[in-house]
Amino acid sequence: MSVTAAQGFRAAGVAAGLKSSGDPDVAVVVNDGPSTAAAAVYTSNRCKANPVLWSQEAIKGGRASAVALNSGGANCYTGAEGFQTTHATAELVAERLGVGAIDVQVCSTGLIGLVNDRDDLLGGVARAIDGLADDGGAAAARAIMTTDSVPKQAQATRDGFTVGGMAKGAGMLAPALATMLVVITTDADVDSATADAALREACRTTFNRLDSDGCQSTNDTVLLMASGASGVTPDAEAFTAALHEVCHSLALQLLADAEGADHEIAIEVVHAASEDDAVEVGRSVARSNLFKAAIFGKDPNWGRILASVGTTQAAFDPADLDVALNDVWVCRASGPAESADGVDLEPRQVSVTIDLKSGDASATIWTNDLTHAYVHENSAYSS
Amino acid sequence: MSVTAAQGFRAAGVAAGLKSSGDPDVAVVVNDGPSTAAAAVYTSNRCKANPVLWSQEAIKGGRASAVALNSGGANCYTGAEGFQTTHATAELVAERLGVGAIDVQVCSTGLIGLVNDRDDLLGGVARAIDGLADDGGAAAARAIMTTDSVPKQAQATRDGFTVGGMAKGAGMLAPALATMLVVITTDADVDSATADAALREACRTTFNRLDSDGCQSTNDTVLLMASGASGVTPDAEAFTAALHEVCHSLALQLLADAEGADHEIAIEVVHAASEDDAVEVGRSVARSNLFKAAIFGKDPNWGRILASVGTTQAAFDPADLDVALNDVWVCRASGPAESADGVDLEPRQVSVTIDLKSGDASATIWTNDLTHAYVHENSAYSS
Repeated sequence: MSVTAAQGFRAAGVAAGLKSSGDPDVAVVVNDGPSTAAAAVYTSNRCKANPVLWSQEAIKGGRASAVALNSGGANCYTGAEGFQTTHATAELVAERLGVGAIDVQVCSTGLIGLVNDRDDLLGGVARAIDGLADDGGAAAARAIMTTDSVPKQAQATRDGFTVGGMAKGAGMLAPALATMLVVITTDADVDSATADAALREACRTTFNRLDSDGCQSTNDTVLLMASGASGVTPDAEAFTAALHEVCHSLALQLLADAEGADHEIAIEVVHAASEDDAVEVGRSVARSNLFKAAIFGKDPNWGRILASVGTTQAAFDPADLDVALNDVWVCRASGPAESADGVDLEPRQVSVTIDLKSGDASATIWTNDLTHAYVHENSAYSS
Repeated sequence: MSVTAAQGFRAAGVAAGLKSSGDPDVAVVVNDGPSTAAAAVYTSNRCKANPVLWSQEAIKGGRASAVALNSGGANCYTGAEGFQTTHATAELVAERLGVGAIDVQVCSTGLIGLVNDRDDLLGGVARAIDGLADDGGAAAARAIMTTDSVPKQAQATRDGFTVGGMAKGAGMLAPALATMLVVITTDADVDSATADAALREACRTTFNRLDSDGCQSTNDTVLLMASGASGVTPDAEAFTAALHEVCHSLALQLLADAEGADHEIAIEVVHAASEDDAVEVGRSVARSNLFKAAIFGKDPNWGRILASVGTTQAAFDPADLDVALNDVWVCRASGPAESADGVDLEPRQVSVTIDLKSGDASATIWTNDLTHAYVHENSAYSS
């Protein structure tokens, strides 16, 4: 149930002094092979952090022997000095492992614009490498937490191979990607092209459908490293399915731990003309502060759902929309139907179903409610 | 300073019982001419309320003799019965004034999906017509309030003609339009084509640049009625300028009274390649919950501004952005510059300046912070 669940991986997490709390803040995950095939997806934000600028170039060869991650500072918009810090991190890991710097991925998370002390960071990376262990996955998962209240880990075991992963992310959760650092490991023997295709497909319907607060990070990274240590080469479909299982589990763990959230909301759009339409409609609702505040208040205010649907370009007839809240069809044919009094919004899980009556496609977007705790956490984060 | 400031207009506001509080909830504004030239813009939301469905057809002739407005219910997604209520309202006003129903605009605001009692509404409209007065503008402005804490009125007087207006709106403030009902009157003698062009231009840089919470309403209407009673036909530029002054004043009044807001934030984007780019960038920042929560917390967290800028398609170099908060340039060339400690976020007015260094265009978007009070008001609105 971690990044060291699959054969061929070691990990560690240490406290390097980047967090003023003294909590662990540096993690290293190493792939001991025999294969070092890898794939990754990064934030589509154009304002990318230094570790993303480095890693997206480094991954082009389809290989990664290790990843060094730090919390306590995003190393984003920290200028040339920040990029040099990322580069020095990769160089240090490479030197200690006897690989090329180009084989080392780097991830950072925390406050944008904050310049971390380079010596503190490098000291932590060195100690993490010294402490690498076959069972170090849990410590690594803990070291990458920021406002996360719990570490996030997942595992899928199939006949002959294993996929394991860890994730951090609790705010700025929006596509593409949701704001997160994710490291996934597998002992399946897959080449980098297979890994890349499988990773993109798995992310498409998991992390990329998570939209907690509409805000997109500068540091998002989902890295997959494949050691081949199992000696098993699964077919692409089976491998993608296992990878999807891990991504789905991690995505829902991120959703459940989103900053200040009281509810986890699944917005399912059905009978859309296309999957893109379904995603657009779901996302528009997921980004409505009014809708999200209503759910926090346990108020089945379905008009706010329709108002959001109406802002999209999806195919539908505005006069013929059906909407259900927790399976109570409060709106049929764009008019009031079953009484909303029957909608119980006490439970943490909420479902919204929107029937566009325009085709056979569907999609689910996951979001959270907008709460006092969200405002509190995010008005005080850097202070 | 009201919709009855210009010659040729009468108005009234009454309590019809639509609001459970017993506060005034029905207003009527009548244009006694001699001209009935009119223009209007409506929400671009595809899920439009019944009064919008009616009014957007009725305005096609470029004339309006009156507008009937109610708060206490949006008459949106209320089915055929709701449309009949709108139609009956227009018919009643028309009959009492001796005009055609097609010359009557209708506006509603309040909860979506709520079916108002038609008799209550029509009774209120009839009493409002009985009470029409040359100085009824203030009462009308009060009757259209929902969560507004104060009525909003404005006036621009020029040599020979006057423009007056009223507005309501305190939540769901986003383009295009911001969520609002606005009625503007003038005694200038302008034809409907001139009125239409001037109204669109004035709205473009005022109401359409207000983005309080990213949510777009189903009921937005900005109606301009021109009586010609002054006998003066200003040139188009002078008329547009006066109209812009009234729209600008009302827009800032809406901003100042936005639900639960602690700060009014002006986001100015300069040196953009195009005005569209500047608007896109400003709007992306205005919609960042993380940025807005930080301002509520008086936290000069400029990284959240850059993270939002990076989500746009505007022309800029991600490695060369400058950002100022209240004129302190906290970020230069995409790195830390002046200390953010010098940014005083105690005052209600906050300015953000983003220099894209890519051209000569600029635009300002206005928004509010994200506060506990916003969450509270919007989690309890329909209960």
